Amino acid sequence: MIPSTMQDFPLSVAAILRHGARVYGRSECVTWTGGGPPRRATFAAIAGNAERLAAALARLGVRRGDRVATFCWNNQEHLEAYFAVPAMGAVLHTLNIRLFPEQLAHIINHADDQVVIVDDSLVPLLARVVHELPAVEAFVVVGDGDASPLQANGNGAPVLRYHDLLAAEEPGFGWPDVDERSAASMCYTSGTTGDPKGVVYSHRSTFLHAMAVQSASMIGITEADRVLTIVPMFHVNAWGLPYGAFLSGATLHMPGPFMQPEHLTEFIAAEKSTLASAVPTIWNGILAHGDQHEIDLSSLRAGTSGGAAAPRILLERFEQRYGLRIIQGWGMTETSPLGGMAFPPPGVEPGTAEDMDWRLKSGRVAAGVEMRIVDDAGAELPWDGEAVGEIEVRGPWITGAYHRDPAPAKFDGGWLRTGDIGTIDDRGFFQITDRAKDVIKSGGEWISSVELENHLMAHPAVAEAAVIGIPDPRWDERPLACVVLRPGAAATPGELAAFLAGKVARWQVPEYWTFLDEIPKTTVGKFDKKPLRADHKAAKLKVEHVER
Amino acid sequence: MIPSTMQDFPLSVAAILRHGARVYGRSECVTWTGGGPPRRATFAAIAGNAERLAAALARLGVRRGDRVATFCWNNQEHLEAYFAVPAMGAVLHTLNIRLFPEQLAHIINHADDQVVIVDDSLVPLLARVVHELPAVEAFVVVGDGDASPLQANGNGAPVLRYHDLLAAEEPGFGWPDVDERSAASMCYTSGTTGDPKGVVYSHRSTFLHAMAVQSASMIGITEADRVLTIVPMFHVNAWGLPYGAFLSGATLHMPGPFMQPEHLTEFIAAEKSTLASAVPTIWNGILAHGDQHEIDLSSLRAGTSGGAAAPRILLERFEQRYGLRIIQGWGMTETSPLGGMAFPPPGVEPGTAEDMDWRLKSGRVAAGVEMRIVDDAGAELPWDGEAVGEIEVRGPWITGAYHRDPAPAKFDGGWLRTGDIGTIDDRGFFQITDRAKDVIKSGGEWISSVELENHLMAHPAVAEAAVIGIPDPRWDERPLACVVLRPGAAATPGELAAFLAGKVARWQVPEYWTFLDEIPKTTVGKFDKKPLRADHKAAKLKVEHVER
Repeated sequence: MIPSTMQDFPLSVAAILRHGARVYGRSECVTWTGGGPPRRATFAAIAGNAERLAAALARLGVRRGDRVATFCWNNQEHLEAYFAVPAMGAVLHTLNIRLFPEQLAHIINHADDQVVIVDDSLVPLLARVVHELPAVEAFVVVGDGDASPLQANGNGAPVLRYHDLLAAEEPGFGWPDVDERSAASMCYTSGTTGDPKGVVYSHRSTFLHAMAVQSASMIGITEADRVLTIVPMFHVNAWGLPYGAFLSGATLHMPGPFMQPEHLTEFIAAEKSTLASAVPTIWNGILAHGDQHEIDLSSLRAGTSGGAAAPRILLERFEQRYGLRIIQGWGMTETSPLGGMAFPPPGVEPGTAEDMDWRLKSGRVAAGVEMRIVDDAGAELPWDGEAVGEIEVRGPWITGAYHRDPAPAKFDGGWLRTGDIGTIDDRGFFQITDRAKDVIKSGGEWISSVELENHLMAHPAVAEAAVIGIPDPRWDERPLACVVLRPGAAATPGELAAFLAGKVARWQVPEYWTFLDEIPKTTVGKFDKKPLRADHKAAKLKVEHVER
Repeated sequence: MIPSTMQDFPLSVAAILRHGARVYGRSECVTWTGGGPPRRATFAAIAGNAERLAAALARLGVRRGDRVATFCWNNQEHLEAYFAVPAMGAVLHTLNIRLFPEQLAHIINHADDQVVIVDDSLVPLLARVVHELPAVEAFVVVGDGDASPLQANGNGAPVLRYHDLLAAEEPGFGWPDVDERSAASMCYTSGTTGDPKGVVYSHRSTFLHAMAVQSASMIGITEADRVLTIVPMFHVNAWGLPYGAFLSGATLHMPGPFMQPEHLTEFIAAEKSTLASAVPTIWNGILAHGDQHEIDLSSLRAGTSGGAAAPRILLERFEQRYGLRIIQGWGMTETSPLGGMAFPPPGVEPGTAEDMDWRLKSGRVAAGVEMRIVDDAGAELPWDGEAVGEIEVRGPWITGAYHRDPAPAKFDGGWLRTGDIGTIDDRGFFQITDRAKDVIKSGGEWISSVELENHLMAHPAVAEAAVIGIPDPRWDERPLACVVLRPGAAATPGELAAFLAGKVARWQVPEYWTFLDEIPKTTVGKFDKKPLRADHKAAKLKVEHVER
């Protein structure tokens, strides 16, 4: 054995910050103000403010490893915290502003946040839980808005102003050396079941993920880009774009609270954004806005979409109306999030049906991430685009645990069980077909509930359809289709089964049917199948049977 | 302090190989054969062969940490060794086929190479030292050519055939887990002074460097690329292109021994290379070939040049004649090598004088590399494009030592002293102006010998000029210009000094001059200033003085 002669140089958030500040000091963070001129700060200025913020936090008593939370929109100050907190050796905890109060209080306390940085416009939301946060030692309010509701915290924690704190400090904070495997930031999953789970990113994972974001095979941002980060900065590090921008020099466009389509499209047109990243709901909103208004998206070289599968019609409309190609990416809080993006392979002509088919894949495995699919018994399945199994991932920016929650069921010998069910083809394109908890296991084969639902909802008489697996003595499980008919429409189970027959394999067609007035929904509007399963178990559903 | 929850997943050559084999299994390595059809192998096939090669090497007794050398051109088998040897936990030592015999024997013995893989066409070159390699336990010959000269090795080491060895094995070798900081490969500098020094790359540095190669801000190779790697694979990992290709899916074009311009241009035209990477000498050869022949470079989206500064005229001619933009990169054996590339900033119109000025920079600091310039006293100098100092670098793919050679003078508190003198501007573009050993230190300021030489050689009467520093009681050093006049031409020191006066600062103009019949040269054709300094010290030069 001989030793490597390479330097033992840690991958760190401070290194990302130094690169952006020195090599791309002229690149900008542009924050939309909803009316007046946008606020502009160069990366060099951001770096100076991050140094001031770190000095102020240190003065407040923040030490290595302490947690500093943000409860903020996407804006310049949030970006400053993205760098200052990890670079000073503390841990940035980005709080989801859309959580229920009890969840919000739970995760602040679970993470043991000592300082909370909050946008003035969000003070009322945070104030709902401020009396339940015994560990918080200071609140730092961004902006000049009313901060008095935070005074009611039970700790006597001071309520300070972000800009006062920074004004009292000088730049030049000396970033400490950090172990690259130490905690840099954390984010809780917004799981629909149970308490949110905390994922703690390291300096190493953050740096590597930022390198991946600027890979030419992935988003490939460069200094020539102006990236509108619609995806919230409280949502998995805004998909790594802020850190990727400092490695690559891409200008960042921050919408602040102005998430409405009219603001976003005005921002794009005014500042000539070259990329925009958002969930399908936002893209849908932009499309609907474009139905009524003249919008100019011509500066965008692409859009990226993630968080949920984008429907074909969405991708088609953007392409047809605006010549805008939306590329889907896949990831989770647990995966930092970049797991893959669905760029079609070379040689595929943009705008063709083939191109669209590729873009409807969930993604193609990113370099740095390893993926596999496994069956119920844990056996690895082939990458043939046919075999269906649970997707598992591993790699240097994939979580291997949850914060203060061992949850071993989520891991399989070093691999993260994603809970997504799907296929992988021989070029690493994967297609998610269902969630593991929803897939129907029938006779050793898996039936996608999502696929049946999509087909059923294409029937003219069907308003909504949710399919669940119910116990079956012979097949283990069989699908039960829960259908809501359109007002005034009629359809029998036999008719609907016949409608499905040509679209899915014969053995996948449900023989059990029930008609409901509505499908129960979660707080974020997704079908909630738990009450359906409970109602079926309690024999509360009127189930009709048709012969297979 | 809270722990990160990220997986402890090692960055490794095996991970690069797995990604290329699975996600880009259809991409190819195409080896030129100089006449017949090129040899083609998919990345999936390369991976299978790498598994066979590892099995064969293990059978020969190669264990973790053992060194396996290659003495090969750029070809498929060399690529297989690039993956097999590190992935099995051994260390790949790429031997420079252009070394003098005594240097070659020295580094094989210094590295303690146990197996040498050699192309049949290179057997005669290796045979010159085969009796001086006591530690080599086996020679493995690629191809069917005469291998008998290797039998004369003094060890009784067997001389085996690469393809026989692979044919006797099955794919499926299980790559072991490795510590990412363990040695993966090594390369010796081809320093013009003293013995070559060994740099040992780690799995971690190799993976990170491959990520950098596919960064959109750098070469940015993707699956759509076909990369002609003219830069030898024995020269700093072929600039990381083979590993970058397996992360990104770029097809690799390997010229084998066919390095002549007619072969290279035929390869580009036949296989539609999209990128080509070579030293300026090779680019010059292609240009000269194009003077006489019709060549088609239209498939190239860019060329990259490194290893030495490319003259302006070279970049201009390629752009004017072929519309080909050559981008310069900077690096060293010690830096893996990617330290920076001279892509102009956004907004600069290709083909303009401004574009050319940017492209004549030595590079722009790569994300992952930190750079600074320091003066004689070790003080850091500003990034203002004016201050001149020695360039120092640090980062995860920069060496911090040499193999079995502490050489502390090359390091400065964790930074590698590059031995290059230059400036850095406020956007991280750096310009190398001289080598540290050649720069002239006069009155606390530095004078670039290279700059004076370039100006002098532009004078119509001057064939060659080398400038050295000579001791001066008042200024520490002053420049002595050593000039070779063109046959039949005449120029006095006063005339030449006047010629320089408008081109460099007045205090930089040499007052000491000598005229020679020729400038001494190194074996690679560079000016050798050591004999000039020795001759001056021994008062063997006839020095003329002109008033400043």
